[in-house]
Amino acid sequence: MSPAELDRTDPEGAVAAMVARVSNVGRWGEDDVRGTMNLIDAAKRREAAGLIRTGESFSLAQSFDMDGPQRGWRRRTNPVHTMLDTGSDAALGNQGFPHGIGGADDVIAMPLQCSTQWDGLGHIFDHGRAWNGRPAERVVTSDGDLVTGIEKVADVVVGRGVLLDVGRVVGAASGDEAGELPDGYAITTEDLERTIAVQGESARVGRGDIVVVRTGQLSRARREGWGEYAGGPAPGLSFTTAPWLHETEIAAIATDTWGFEVRPNEFDVAFQPLHQVAIPNMGLFLGEMWDPDALAAACAADGVYDFFLTAAPLPITGAVGSPVNPIAVR
Amino acid sequence: MSPAELDRTDPEGAVAAMVARVSNVGRWGEDDVRGTMNLIDAAKRREAAGLIRTGESFSLAQSFDMDGPQRGWRRRTNPVHTMLDTGSDAALGNQGFPHGIGGADDVIAMPLQCSTQWDGLGHIFDHGRAWNGRPAERVVTSDGDLVTGIEKVADVVVGRGVLLDVGRVVGAASGDEAGELPDGYAITTEDLERTIAVQGESARVGRGDIVVVRTGQLSRARREGWGEYAGGPAPGLSFTTAPWLHETEIAAIATDTWGFEVRPNEFDVAFQPLHQVAIPNMGLFLGEMWDPDALAAACAADGVYDFFLTAAPLPITGAVGSPVNPIAVR
Amino acid sequence: MSPAELDRTDPEGAVAAMVARVSNVGRWGEDDVRGTMNLIDAAKRREAAGLIRTGESFSLAQSFDMDGPQRGWRRRTNPVHTMLDTGSDAALGNQGFPHGIGGADDVIAMPLQCSTQWDGLGHIFDHGRAWNGRPAERVVTSDGDLVTGIEKVADVVVGRGVLLDVGRVVGAASGDEAGELPDGYAITTEDLERTIAVQGESARVGRGDIVVVRTGQLSRARREGWGEYAGGPAPGLSFTTAPWLHETEIAAIATDTWGFEVRPNEFDVAFQPLHQVAIPNMGLFLGEMWDPDALAAACAADGVYDFFLTAAPLPITGAVGSPVNPIAVR
Amino acid sequence: MSPAELDRTDPEGAVAAMVARVSNVGRWGEDDVRGTMNLIDAAKRREAAGLIRTGESFSLAQSFDMDGPQRGWRRRTNPVHTMLDTGSDAALGNQGFPHGIGGADDVIAMPLQCSTQWDGLGHIFDHGRAWNGRPAERVVTSDGDLVTGIEKVADVVVGRGVLLDVGRVVGAASGDEAGELPDGYAITTEDLERTIAVQGESARVGRGDIVVVRTGQLSRARREGWGEYAGGPAPGLSFTTAPWLHETEIAAIATDTWGFEVRPNEFDVAFQPLHQVAIPNMGLFLGEMWDPDALAAACAADGVYDFFLTAAPLPITGAVGSPVNPIAVR
Repeated sequence: MSPAELDRTDPEGAVAAMVARVSNVGRWGEDDVRGTMNLIDAAKRREAAGLIRTGESFSLAQSFDMDGPQRGWRRRTNPVHTMLDTGSDAALGNQGFPHGIGGADDVIAMPLQCSTQWDGLGHIFDHGRAWNGRPAERVVTSDGDLVTGIEKVADVVVGRGVLLDVGRVVGAASGDEAGELPDGYAITTEDLERTIAVQGESARVGRGDIVVVRTGQLSRARREGWGEYAGGPAPGLSFTTAPWLHETEIAAIATDTWGFEVRPNEFDVAFQPLHQVAIPNMGLFLGEMWDPDALAAACAADGVYDFFLTAAPLPITGAVGSPVNPIAVR
Repeated sequence: MSPAELDRTDPEGAVAAMVARVSNVGRWGEDDVRGTMNLIDAAKRREAAGLIRTGESFSLAQSFDMDGPQRGWRRRTNPVHTMLDTGSDAALGNQGFPHGIGGADDVIAMPLQCSTQWDGLGHIFDHGRAWNGRPAERVVTSDGDLVTGIEKVADVVVGRGVLLDVGRVVGAASGDEAGELPDGYAITTEDLERTIAVQGESARVGRGDIVVVRTGQLSRARREGWGEYAGGPAPGLSFTTAPWLHETEIAAIATDTWGFEVRPNEFDVAFQPLHQVAIPNMGLFLGEMWDPDALAAACAADGVYDFFLTAAPLPITGAVGSPVNPIAVR
Repeated sequence: MSPAELDRTDPEGAVAAMVARVSNVGRWGEDDVRGTMNLIDAAKRREAAGLIRTGESFSLAQSFDMDGPQRGWRRRTNPVHTMLDTGSDAALGNQGFPHGIGGADDVIAMPLQCSTQWDGLGHIFDHGRAWNGRPAERVVTSDGDLVTGIEKVADVVVGRGVLLDVGRVVGAASGDEAGELPDGYAITTEDLERTIAVQGESARVGRGDIVVVRTGQLSRARREGWGEYAGGPAPGLSFTTAPWLHETEIAAIATDTWGFEVRPNEFDVAFQPLHQVAIPNMGLFLGEMWDPDALAAACAADGVYDFFLTAAPLPITGAVGSPVNPIAVR
Repeated sequence: MSPAELDRTDPEGAVAAMVARVSNVGRWGEDDVRGTMNLIDAAKRREAAGLIRTGESFSLAQSFDMDGPQRGWRRRTNPVHTMLDTGSDAALGNQGFPHGIGGADDVIAMPLQCSTQWDGLGHIFDHGRAWNGRPAERVVTSDGDLVTGIEKVADVVVGRGVLLDVGRVVGAASGDEAGELPDGYAITTEDLERTIAVQGESARVGRGDIVVVRTGQLSRARREGWGEYAGGPAPGLSFTTAPWLHETEIAAIATDTWGFEVRPNEFDVAFQPLHQVAIPNMGLFLGEMWDPDALAAACAADGVYDFFLTAAPLPITGAVGSPVNPIAVR
């Protein structure tokens, strides 16, 4: 299916049709709380261990601070980090501790999806249904996600990562030197497959893999300023990639953009329709606002695109998302 | 040096003497911001990759929620997690989104050291000096740690981990079946070395390793309730282990207790004197409130005590500590 | 009705019967968002102006800080106040401002009902109904109270206050010198009327007045420590006072306790049944955790129990409660 | 002194000279913690009681919500208000309470100076000195304002208020129909005195009064959007009004702007020099981001500009500022 085949006037119909095609509801039993994370197993981790060649490590996280892109939409702010104690007070002898010890302490207040993050399974609903067919109101109340809180995958998100530098491959094909897809560019299944083909064997994608898609938008934002990075136009996955996301049996996928899928969305009036298919119906974990740039440079340099990836969420009980510092070792 | 040799009336003198013996100030240059994390290198990570045998993964994090142990000391609360949107509202059609999509979002407010954590290099000062001899007031102001913020080690904390189950080894030696050291028990260098000897070759500790010490206090708190876990009496490392921490050239060390070192401290009037030696003078990273219990059971079962460990802090700019979800793969 | 007449086994029936007797639903029109605050009018404020005799002013607020009584129930913490900038940094020249100016700034994170407060009309529901018969889910969603948020009464809560020092009057009658009712004491209509009679003409209570009931529990907590002040046993109004609350046509009522009504509640299994009658059915504003002690001493000294009272909530859009610093001028 | 006489190149000299002229340091004793609030006494409150004529009340507060003007400068965000419990969950029976009761609860995280506020005495320093000559580092540490926290004036901020509608009077004189001063307009002593003269006897300003200056900027922001309201160009008091602020012996002064004084400031390189004179040296309380528009309309309608004003800060222990809902009764 290509984006051109979508009926822009009927997102609801398109979602329903796609769900019929790609649903994983019931696949891992009615009590399942891990969705596609079930696809990572011990064998996959052993395989991933073999990808550590040089021992170099990379953080794929953006900075968590007030210089982030959030502008208040749906009460999402940038992280507010404040000090409970400081070196200034220690130096001035204001702290009341004995034998010359001094200390600093700090607190943070932040939306769990303000920066580099995982969307948890409770983050999105489809017609009042959360992951695995559960009624949304039985899953996520004011007390948080009572069933599929992010803590349920605290120990599992470690395995083989694959970088698909779509920005570089597709951008270059269209003469873009910077390796950056334009805002509004819908990445198609063909684009994903071409990227794999160009990048070679190490970029093959399969069951249990965690895919990191670089669009290049973050590189542009780093150079030009955030602008509307948080929620505005962006390159991202086309709604039509849902079958690819399903058939590859990947465990998770992350991008360097705010919202993973292309924005504006590919319907006249819509809001994140690929999320609606992927999270409650496929149980797929989506990563957003990742920073793959340093890793991408290393991959481009030696042509090896897979690596050992640990991207464990903070086990915040009942959270529908979590900040994360993904670490790639290659 | 044994704990019995300490002059309980002179913590300031003891700290000064110990610092003279174990200081790393200047070791990695005057501009250093990574302290003992410099001891983890690519070779160490390659070595660690070889430790992945079964592919099992373990989270060493406690839960982040209101059921934690914090009781308000120095304004440290448990994490307050609240919802910005819920499944209840989605189910009721309260959200105003198109085509049947619904969403949940959340925020958190928490001290950075409320649960499983790393102490950053800016967390502790010695007579007004932060790590590497810098004036504390030039390092940690109300704007946070301007020099050695936890983000400076965002990409590095991944390598070989070693579990020292001191609770089990030393506890068993004294007839304790539960594998739990009593509160106030000072773990000595001899205890550490005996644990290594009993556990065998996989438990050897050396340059660049990340050591996880299990005292068993968390197991007890899990069974009996938190009580004074946050700041009260606890087993922990003796002040006299500083030379061992230095000579082994470990990159970091973590415990299952609130404060890493034994409490009450080993002087008549004192507050965390081993921190005062370790952080500003050795540049050593300390982990606290880790949960090694599941990992410890696996290690005990097959007698293999080392593993691949990723324990990357959230890159919160200028933070003097960070919550962390350490992931061990064995 | 006396407390002895209550059927302890049937709170639901008792609530229903009481609601039938005291409901104000519809009284001020179907669009009403102010409940009993409609009973304060300009004439009442002119009357109240005449009560300012000496010009003394009193704050009826408790302190907002970490030393408060909250212990985490339903994620209610004490206020966490942290500094964004300090005098220490200003003194050290760390701030980067010109011409010798320095500054301090601060933030707070707190439950809106952590200390001296108003319950807003959206705080309590009766069988899924909010104030004035509205479906609760149409009123208070994750976006807050969309209809009766506390901001709707931002300008109105100023008028005649009356202190009823029930602790002193009823306590003294039973030989208590301290003027403190015991925990679990249910204040009856007879107690309220006796207090008015003993205190005299200035203590008469009528349409549009704001009544402040002193039980003495706060005095005890101040002396003995908080203990279970937040949610535990306490003196407070009996369920049976609902008719008095209704017939007097008061605009609001506040106490020096955590929960206004007597605790444990007067049914075998119950949670705040008088709230259930008063807020969604009467539209009555309840104040909690007020500190009337200094005012009470002044009233006792000269025998005048009414005063000019301003107790304006912070106009936090959509809040179901608000911290408040009530100011009495007499 | 007129603004034209200022040496734009020497703010430090200008501040020093002005301080020499208007300082109140020591005026109320070396232990003073209330500054100009000492000028409000019981007699002033009795006088103010006589100003209540119609009994109408007005809130002078802006809304506290995410739609406010803050844009992140110095980590100042708009208030983040989130729900702990909702009517949606109550309606769905998710809460577990007995007999049909349901509840909603909420929390807030906000800078204390994010919206309508008082600057406390610890908010600004002059060359490392806080109010009354105290070393800044002894007053405001990471633990907050240990000496002059806003709680010290919790009970005092109630008395006679006077509205000076400079926007209307001065704006009209220059042909502005809207009653709005342009951004960057420095309100002079002459402007203040002309406003008083035009408004008449009820607008006289004297000892212990709380002055509310309307510039009209908020009316403009309400119509046109916030733009740079938080920190950008704005009308406000000229540095040269310091002697008027001193000689009138007012207790406090508030404006409808972010920063009270004119912005850009009247020196080539400067930051809030009138604050530097007023707060640490005069002990003057400054209100910011007040909303006088509804009150101003009423005053204009009947030509009476004074009123009974209660503007009590929340007694947040150690705060250097406080949100406030000022209530005017006329």
